[in-house]
Amino acid sequence: MNTHDAFPHIRIVLVNTTHPGNIGATARAIKNMGLSQLYLVNPKMFPHAEATARASGADDVLAEAVVTDSLDDAINGCSLVIGTSARRRDIPWPMLQLRDAAKKIIYEAEHHPVAILFGQEQFGLTNDELERCHFLITIPCNPDYPSLNLAAAVQIVAYEICMAIATDVGAQHAAPIDDLATADEMQKFYDHLQQMLIDIEFLNPQNPRKLMHRLIRLFNRARVEKRELNILRGILTGVQKKL
Amino acid sequence: MNTHDAFPHIRIVLVNTTHPGNIGATARAIKNMGLSQLYLVNPKMFPHAEATARASGADDVLAEAVVTDSLDDAINGCSLVIGTSARRRDIPWPMLQLRDAAKKIIYEAEHHPVAILFGQEQFGLTNDELERCHFLITIPCNPDYPSLNLAAAVQIVAYEICMAIATDVGAQHAAPIDDLATADEMQKFYDHLQQMLIDIEFLNPQNPRKLMHRLIRLFNRARVEKRELNILRGILTGVQKKL
Repeated sequence: MNTHDAFPHIRIVLVNTTHPGNIGATARAIKNMGLSQLYLVNPKMFPHAEATARASGADDVLAEAVVTDSLDDAINGCSLVIGTSARRRDIPWPMLQLRDAAKKIIYEAEHHPVAILFGQEQFGLTNDELERCHFLITIPCNPDYPSLNLAAAVQIVAYEICMAIATDVGAQHAAPIDDLATADEMQKFYDHLQQMLIDIEFLNPQNPRKLMHRLIRLFNRARVEKRELNILRGILTGVQKKL
Repeated sequence: MNTHDAFPHIRIVLVNTTHPGNIGATARAIKNMGLSQLYLVNPKMFPHAEATARASGADDVLAEAVVTDSLDDAINGCSLVIGTSARRRDIPWPMLQLRDAAKKIIYEAEHHPVAILFGQEQFGLTNDELERCHFLITIPCNPDYPSLNLAAAVQIVAYEICMAIATDVGAQHAAPIDDLATADEMQKFYDHLQQMLIDIEFLNPQNPRKLMHRLIRLFNRARVEKRELNILRGILTGVQKKL
């Protein structure tokens, strides 16, 4: 089970974690489920004795954790980025049930790196972080008391991934995954798109409103392929040359 | 969800717990999943500041926790007693998969109290405690590193109970389909897009190749919403005006 092809491609990404104990507990939680790739974006305190204490035997996961300054570095090369959220958002974002998401994660992780983001303990993912995600998952729980502990949320997600692998009978998805654009490639496209929209004076940088947000949401939903991305970039360049 | 008949009849029983932090984290874990009945058999330290700290808003569960001197007192009146175990036992005991056990638990808990036992952190349930159980469940995990944290184990079991209840009621709320663009609206957009691509000399009408085909495939996959379509049409018009 722990030799499944998907495991080494699944990144658990903790963003702006406040409590080092939660980092240690997360290391233990994912190792228990056969996962090992831990990314820490701007942890407040790490390394830290409390992280080591709570890891309790998962020191190897902690020792190999990748610490980054930016979320973009942590999801670099990932073709699928999934966010976790305890609450409903103002602007609707494509949602997946955790159990379905787990199937999708292991299927894609057999071919490409996949990132699962967990936001800061108190506030969760910011809207800016959310925009890096193709899908959001919420963990079903008591609506009157939805605030899961960070490591507990990771534990449940890792458990569902482990269960999806255990029950995976193999190729049940018909559509082959083409060469999907990675998160960093998409980010470059969004930057390019934004610049073109400024060039044609469709987007006012002084008053951007939610324009880019809506466009990002649209394209993330489509899961753009590399070849398609080349076409889109070509169109943007074509417009700019013509101006 | 949290008004399901089964909830008040499901007892989470921690036996001989050593670390008060685990008791607090357990209180939070079960409240997150809609459960409330916590029984503590001979906890080493309780009440305790660390339990309160880790409960983080589940103080009510802690305050109402039933502390007993013996396991028999904690499972008194229960028609179904289920034990949890990280390891295989020498003496074979009737085993259930957690997911199947969760269905059984909620089915029986609609009528009778059900107890789920979690043993001491280091050694788990003793053989004597095990003998009180009708079934044993193990949580599938990394065979090389099976030692789940106590509260993490409770979290997963409570989550599966919550999921069993959520799927029991049937009516899964499907994601509401937003106001999607219609086929004819999409067709007008594709015509407009094609004209713009000709205007910027990106598309050669004499040799169109598969360009439009690829773009249509991309946008159709995204299931474009009406509001998004307005933005896209606005961009096309913006480019054409600027030329």
